[in-house]
Amino acid sequence: MAAFSFNKLVIFGVGLIGGSLARALRERARLSGRVVGVGRSAASVARALELGVIDEAAALDDDAALARALEGADIVLLAAPVAQTQPLLARIAPFLAPTTIVTDAGSTKSDVVAAARAALGARAAQFVPAHPIAGRESSGVDAALPELYVGRNVVLCPQPDNAPEAVERVAAMWRATGANVHCMSEAQHDRVFASVSHLPHVLSFALVDQILDAPDAELKFSFAAGGFRDFTRIAASSPEMWRDVCLANRTALLAELDAYTDVLARFRAAIEASDGAALEAAFARSRVARTEWQERGALKSSGDPAAK
Amino acid sequence: MAAFSFNKLVIFGVGLIGGSLARALRERARLSGRVVGVGRSAASVARALELGVIDEAAALDDDAALARALEGADIVLLAAPVAQTQPLLARIAPFLAPTTIVTDAGSTKSDVVAAARAALGARAAQFVPAHPIAGRESSGVDAALPELYVGRNVVLCPQPDNAPEAVERVAAMWRATGANVHCMSEAQHDRVFASVSHLPHVLSFALVDQILDAPDAELKFSFAAGGFRDFTRIAASSPEMWRDVCLANRTALLAELDAYTDVLARFRAAIEASDGAALEAAFARSRVARTEWQERGALKSSGDPAAK
Repeated sequence: MAAFSFNKLVIFGVGLIGGSLARALRERARLSGRVVGVGRSAASVARALELGVIDEAAALDDDAALARALEGADIVLLAAPVAQTQPLLARIAPFLAPTTIVTDAGSTKSDVVAAARAALGARAAQFVPAHPIAGRESSGVDAALPELYVGRNVVLCPQPDNAPEAVERVAAMWRATGANVHCMSEAQHDRVFASVSHLPHVLSFALVDQILDAPDAELKFSFAAGGFRDFTRIAASSPEMWRDVCLANRTALLAELDAYTDVLARFRAAIEASDGAALEAAFARSRVARTEWQERGALKSSGDPAAK
Repeated sequence: MAAFSFNKLVIFGVGLIGGSLARALRERARLSGRVVGVGRSAASVARALELGVIDEAAALDDDAALARALEGADIVLLAAPVAQTQPLLARIAPFLAPTTIVTDAGSTKSDVVAAARAALGARAAQFVPAHPIAGRESSGVDAALPELYVGRNVVLCPQPDNAPEAVERVAAMWRATGANVHCMSEAQHDRVFASVSHLPHVLSFALVDQILDAPDAELKFSFAAGGFRDFTRIAASSPEMWRDVCLANRTALLAELDAYTDVLARFRAAIEASDGAALEAAFARSRVARTEWQERGALKSSGDPAAK
């Protein structure tokens, strides 16, 4: 593992994710490279500049500023909503030097790979897809933390045309934030997160939706307690972000949703048949697995209950 | 509201729920009545005696001890698993004085009402069905707390043949623990809790079940993070208890499960059709409702994330 250093890092979208990376590299890894933030307008990155999270701000719609921002950049990070990947890359392409590595932080990966190929063509080899598994209930650069990635997982989806050194540079950058880096294919990534993240969000939104349509919704909400609270915590997540995730990862999510519907049908049949033994066996198996998962500490405690 | 006092309270099943009631009445309300604990064997209530939660212990299988325990009792509380309601009441019936009020703490109510009518016949008028909405991850008398019910809801399901004074006595007892008492029919109770408690438990168990059957289960668990953690916290609940709840509240639970499956089918169609507007509108509506619910503080914080 080579230590990481950089001369110039350009972050598109300096919010929680991009801002935390900048703070981690500067405050935690004590690296001295220059950090440039680019936003849809100069005003949107002004706060990041004010907080000292970035050294320089540029507006996305200003050709000259964008060219200056990207000149001499080692690494470009896209940390904007996933649906903006293709337009952002198309906007960057004309100013992108062949030696600059581009990476992202999106929650889905197959669509991001397709967007990179569409926007960058042969230069998509410069793009290393990545997904840091970290988040907080709060968003925006004010919520950015230098410790956000410590002990968290970052998934890279290296492409056949990526140079191994480019993949290693991105991996080293994330390791410098304290994260653990793993590699898998984008298809595998999307299946895994459809199952353990995207599906639970859909299921949680759906429970609140169902109660809202019930004639006695108010009564139901007024007696909802701790089980409901935990189950629906993620139903307070960003509607825009989760709309985009559902659409971007549609194929894998639909497969998981169908498999889940099959499990529910099996549980329903056991309940209808009063098959207590089948229910108890299934519940007991889930309880053991959930308890072991907690004990393995697969999730490093972040102190933030909304960590995605 | 009359203040509550009692001469003798008999608790069948001195675990978390029964033990916390005893401790609340003695330590919080500073009442001086005698508390008798009855267990399946004398040994099972020995710990409650040792902890000073009860004054006297009796074994359920000892006729003479049971008769002595029930003699002169004002109130009998059943705090054993719901499936034991009918056999327990049948066991108690021969020793039950006409002036003794019987109540329970079960999570389902229609089945409990039916069990009371079957076991007690005309004397079912002495039985006031109740459900304290409180719990902790830990169980057993060692987990009992005098403050468990403070600010929590207790639902009573008064029956047409209950004497109003009997209902008021049970309500006053729970108010003395710091709880808020509400009345509704057993059918309404079972619908409400099928929706906001029983269904989420089934859905949470089902997600873990689905992942366990996936060929890449280990990989999925290893990348599961905060969303999964919150959503599945209740999948670590007691399989026996939730088996019994599913069977006892079968009709209402199946109705909620079918309504939920309909919502999922609607969400699935929107995802398949890439109908981002429909998804965003539904997610936004759920987010607003979930956020308002949290802000209303319908759930008084118990400091215990597993409170049911």
